[in-house]
Amino acid sequence: MMQPAAVALGLRLRVLAEGPDVSAAQVITPAPVGAASDAEALVAFARECDAVTFDHEHVPTGLLAAMAEVTSVQPGAEALVHAQDKIVMREKLTALGVPCPRWARVASPEDVEGFAAGAGWPVVVKTPRGGYDGKGVLVVDSAADLRSGPAADVLAEWFARGELLAEERVPFTRELAALVARSPSGQAAAWPVVETVQRNSICHEVTAPAPNLSDDLAAEATDIALRIAGGLGVTGVLAVEMFEVERDGVVDVVVNELAMRPHNSGHWSIDGAVTSQFEQHLRAVLDLPLGSPEPRAPWTVMVNVLGPASIEARHADLYRSYLHVMAHDPGVKVHLYGKEQRPGRKLGHVTVYGSDLEQVRERARHAAAFIAGEIDE
Amino acid sequence: MMQPAAVALGLRLRVLAEGPDVSAAQVITPAPVGAASDAEALVAFARECDAVTFDHEHVPTGLLAAMAEVTSVQPGAEALVHAQDKIVMREKLTALGVPCPRWARVASPEDVEGFAAGAGWPVVVKTPRGGYDGKGVLVVDSAADLRSGPAADVLAEWFARGELLAEERVPFTRELAALVARSPSGQAAAWPVVETVQRNSICHEVTAPAPNLSDDLAAEATDIALRIAGGLGVTGVLAVEMFEVERDGVVDVVVNELAMRPHNSGHWSIDGAVTSQFEQHLRAVLDLPLGSPEPRAPWTVMVNVLGPASIEARHADLYRSYLHVMAHDPGVKVHLYGKEQRPGRKLGHVTVYGSDLEQVRERARHAAAFIAGEIDE
Repeated sequence: MMQPAAVALGLRLRVLAEGPDVSAAQVITPAPVGAASDAEALVAFARECDAVTFDHEHVPTGLLAAMAEVTSVQPGAEALVHAQDKIVMREKLTALGVPCPRWARVASPEDVEGFAAGAGWPVVVKTPRGGYDGKGVLVVDSAADLRSGPAADVLAEWFARGELLAEERVPFTRELAALVARSPSGQAAAWPVVETVQRNSICHEVTAPAPNLSDDLAAEATDIALRIAGGLGVTGVLAVEMFEVERDGVVDVVVNELAMRPHNSGHWSIDGAVTSQFEQHLRAVLDLPLGSPEPRAPWTVMVNVLGPASIEARHADLYRSYLHVMAHDPGVKVHLYGKEQRPGRKLGHVTVYGSDLEQVRERARHAAAFIAGEIDE
Repeated sequence: MMQPAAVALGLRLRVLAEGPDVSAAQVITPAPVGAASDAEALVAFARECDAVTFDHEHVPTGLLAAMAEVTSVQPGAEALVHAQDKIVMREKLTALGVPCPRWARVASPEDVEGFAAGAGWPVVVKTPRGGYDGKGVLVVDSAADLRSGPAADVLAEWFARGELLAEERVPFTRELAALVARSPSGQAAAWPVVETVQRNSICHEVTAPAPNLSDDLAAEATDIALRIAGGLGVTGVLAVEMFEVERDGVVDVVVNELAMRPHNSGHWSIDGAVTSQFEQHLRAVLDLPLGSPEPRAPWTVMVNVLGPASIEARHADLYRSYLHVMAHDPGVKVHLYGKEQRPGRKLGHVTVYGSDLEQVRERARHAAAFIAGEIDE
């Protein structure tokens, strides 16, 4: 999704691809193949680039440093580590005074029980590294579950590899995301705060701007994201996923996760904002002036297209899906990623914008559900 | 510029490129190299495609037919001939009752003089084939110019190759363009009629919609374009360039030229319409339902970036141009084509949209002029 923005700006992308058939390699060349852990491939690739950036945060720190010796690496290792390691992230955000769930480092089931004594049950236990779309996250309901059963088994395996992060389970009213971009010279821009809806721990629907969000809370959420971007030295796009919580009648936000790259919560901006997150990321990592993050319509709704539960699903045929969806709604914007279908996999997304939120949302949901084979008409 | 739309829809483009470094080959692979006159290359290329379309109209009819034997060719030869041969075009439009300038086939200077006896001087003489951006067009001011001088020399050369088209020079008040798309199954969609401004016979500025255009005349211009698309069996995007004329106090339009492809007069739609001309062209040639051509802002202005007169121009450096233009106006959308700079060559365009036409136009002109090195601040 970076390629359309690069084409427009006359910038030449190259991609170091995990495999020859990944989405990015289908539309960007050259696309040498190499793993994010392959030092030789990374440095050889970096030598050919004016700047290097990432579509995930899991390049090891040492390899980031090796690339930084031969080119501009954005964001740098010192920022990226906060998106790689959730314990490092919590420590830094707490030091910055950013509101977080109650949290603790834990090294044993006893530590988890001790944390629960203060924070209450259930406890959310996370592996510090490698989590994604709900992976590496475990909800423990009680002390009994720590001692035996499937949760205890998972924890035993995780603890064998090192410390974990324990967090209170925040009784949130909804999830929000604040998306900002920051350039090496320190310019920053913020899109409107959005509402996100997860399904099976995967981002499913995003509404921009978040409905019924007070100006004060929107400003607070944006301020938090900008403080994180500045405090951590982030360059490029930063997505800050937040919980909206109501405590004693006061509505507030706490920070859940960070992503230092264009993020699913910002896909609405491709069709919905003056500057998309992909164009903005390119501008930011090249230290060009940032574009306007202003929305182009009163409401924009993005819905992910997830792989159908059965590969027999009627709408496996892209062309037939398009015949229906495009005829049904000439204003829907469809984005598919050229990925092989697997159940639950993010295959693409649709975006609809307009002035009536309910209509916009209904149109986007219909189109996504039809392409995913969840409905027949 | 087709590639961003293809990426979003998950469609795979391949391009038969005139050379290895042309703009399209920079962002689309595979890009085998072959001339539009190379039968073997065309047919081999066509075999690998579900549908073939064009970014110029000059593929010979016989080769279009050869490709049509192995795949879907859109638009087909029977439509394209009207964009290849201006005499064929005038005959067909006249038969359809479409308003044209007075015109005649001419085979000699005497024929031109005879035409002028009825239509008046000056006379515009055009080669039926191969004209582009003012090339192949000659304005003859008087009978004396037919007999000697530079115009007479050019005409002698042209007549040696065959018949020419003579047209009255229309005393137009401005130029308009009506852009429509039509699919093989006959669905059609029309963007708002735009105003175009030429500079040295090259499209320079487009305003969408055309300011101060009456609803009646807009409807008439759109109707003309749709009748041409249907009457000629056009598939994909059709641009109809028109003159607005005022005769005896009545404002009307006459058709100047046709283009059967995404056209400079439609570049505004990339940022300014729900469906860009490039996405619409893809949908049309694949016979998918067409998208909404609705504009996204009250006014959109596109200004071409032309190569600076001197290669010494200060703004040859793309990065420095971006630093200025993007900082000056975070809302300007810049599109550069990756072409080598040559004086007067179309290197890209900029688009600005908003609700105040004068501001929008001023912003777009400033950005284009700065990138082209015409102004310093």
